[in-house]
Amino acid sequence: MNQETKPYVIGLDLGGTNSVFGIVDKEGNIVAQTSVKTKGHGTVEQYVADCVEALNVIIAEVGGIDKINAMGIGAPNGNYYTGCIDFAPNLPWQEEHIPLARMFSDALGGLRVRMTNDANAAAMGEMIYGAAKGMKNFIMITLGTGVGSGIVINGQVVYGCDGMAGELGHVIVEKHKGRQCGCGRKGCLECYCSATGVARSAREIVSSSDVPTALREIPVDEIESKHVAIAAEKGDPIAKSIFEFTGRMLGEACANFAAFSSPEAFIFFGGLTKAGDLIMDPIRKAYDENVLKIYRGKAQMLVSKLDDAAAAVLGASALGWEE
Amino acid sequence: MNQETKPYVIGLDLGGTNSVFGIVDKEGNIVAQTSVKTKGHGTVEQYVADCVEALNVIIAEVGGIDKINAMGIGAPNGNYYTGCIDFAPNLPWQEEHIPLARMFSDALGGLRVRMTNDANAAAMGEMIYGAAKGMKNFIMITLGTGVGSGIVINGQVVYGCDGMAGELGHVIVEKHKGRQCGCGRKGCLECYCSATGVARSAREIVSSSDVPTALREIPVDEIESKHVAIAAEKGDPIAKSIFEFTGRMLGEACANFAAFSSPEAFIFFGGLTKAGDLIMDPIRKAYDENVLKIYRGKAQMLVSKLDDAAAAVLGASALGWEE
Repeated sequence: MNQETKPYVIGLDLGGTNSVFGIVDKEGNIVAQTSVKTKGHGTVEQYVADCVEALNVIIAEVGGIDKINAMGIGAPNGNYYTGCIDFAPNLPWQEEHIPLARMFSDALGGLRVRMTNDANAAAMGEMIYGAAKGMKNFIMITLGTGVGSGIVINGQVVYGCDGMAGELGHVIVEKHKGRQCGCGRKGCLECYCSATGVARSAREIVSSSDVPTALREIPVDEIESKHVAIAAEKGDPIAKSIFEFTGRMLGEACANFAAFSSPEAFIFFGGLTKAGDLIMDPIRKAYDENVLKIYRGKAQMLVSKLDDAAAAVLGASALGWEE
Repeated sequence: MNQETKPYVIGLDLGGTNSVFGIVDKEGNIVAQTSVKTKGHGTVEQYVADCVEALNVIIAEVGGIDKINAMGIGAPNGNYYTGCIDFAPNLPWQEEHIPLARMFSDALGGLRVRMTNDANAAAMGEMIYGAAKGMKNFIMITLGTGVGSGIVINGQVVYGCDGMAGELGHVIVEKHKGRQCGCGRKGCLECYCSATGVARSAREIVSSSDVPTALREIPVDEIESKHVAIAAEKGDPIAKSIFEFTGRMLGEACANFAAFSSPEAFIFFGGLTKAGDLIMDPIRKAYDENVLKIYRGKAQMLVSKLDDAAAAVLGASALGWEE
């Protein structure tokens, strides 16, 4: 790491709508930022060319490419080993494997470019700039539309034999009568503990019972996790019970994950964590009740403190500090 | 690794009854062997002294301590980080933490000594001498009285924040109405997929139904897993269904483990693997049916080929080849 002469890294958060670039220093300050629409460039070659044009402006602002240590990309289905995006359904290009890391490297004069998926990038971001600074063994859980994860063991993100390890959202937590998951199987953690899962829990309770709840004021098909959060904060007992249920499912799952890698922390990120103790208390309680005795009291249950808007860019950029 | 001038390592398989020592070469040949009763030495200091006396005889046979690269110990509750045995209920010493690695090192002139638990040692043995030679990512599952595991990621055994990671036998696989486990919780993998679990499945079926089976010829409280294996090999449909059930539980669990570390292989060791295809076929089938699509077809399901009697010593000795 050549921090003194190359004090910055570039992070790219590649989303379905926007591609956000940040130039980041070792402390996690985004010193320059730009963005490009992900769609509308035709070929992926043209997309890269248009990105680099925008990027060169902010690179010049910080003193030129010589100040840049490396670049990291966080992208859906980004494969760390190959530097390719593999079969990404929400991106505009049709190729099965897009060698995006190499393409950016070529367009940036041979700069070292690494890529991984969103949740692994988030884990890197926590390790370099965030709640996991100094930790060697932790598990990052992202609670968004789905449930993602990035697992760090011995200070390294776990990529497995194929670059695809760490899909804890698709651990089956309900073998019997589990909810149908988008992956084609039933009972995945993601079906219960994502924003979508919370909305689903709410809709199930509202339509299968006549218990009084503020959630009935919303047409049942339009209930979203944010409605549950608002109602829970106002003290609605049904909404609160939904967060309790969600937290319990997560805590039980984390207790099983502990038997795998005995982490020093679980770090949660994403919209659902905004519910604060409403979700964190049941996570901690279910974890303590379910974890094997030898692990009890060892893992902290933390919420990411990285700024939501910046976290994805920071996470991607963190790859640029790897040796 | 100084293989040319130090061609051997020492392995100690420390069991409740016997302490077996082997001097092992790089190819996994045990070139000299001795053993000492684990009990009856009074203090642990005397145990180590008596062990070293026996050990010095075989060390002399191979040309003296200068030929020894290092020593590895596989012991129940052996902690890799500290080199201590922590709270081992089946060993004769009362100390909470026994610094056995250091004690052997001191008694052997400062020889490098490493320790880990039995299942992690088994994983090391497979990686250095066995079915996992050349692999960087695999999961070892030992099917004995209990279910143990050793997880290898990026070529390293996973020890976690405390040296205690990799207790996959205590992942809860039945959240609802799970069997009572010796660990105090309910529904652990070990309650179903150990030799004890197989016997329990047999007793449950025999006592809760009147289906015809050769297993009824044995008093129900005396049914052991070996009876189930013998009956299954003779074609007894109930005994075969018990192995199918056991294999299915294991295959489903492994499908979840894949989402953690995406291994290139699962390697099974222990008495139950003697049932061959009777257990391996249902493991493979349940795994293929339950694993997330992106992992399908990637992990091999292998049975250890290491000799049963030698495997524990080999596994322990493999620690001696670590850098």
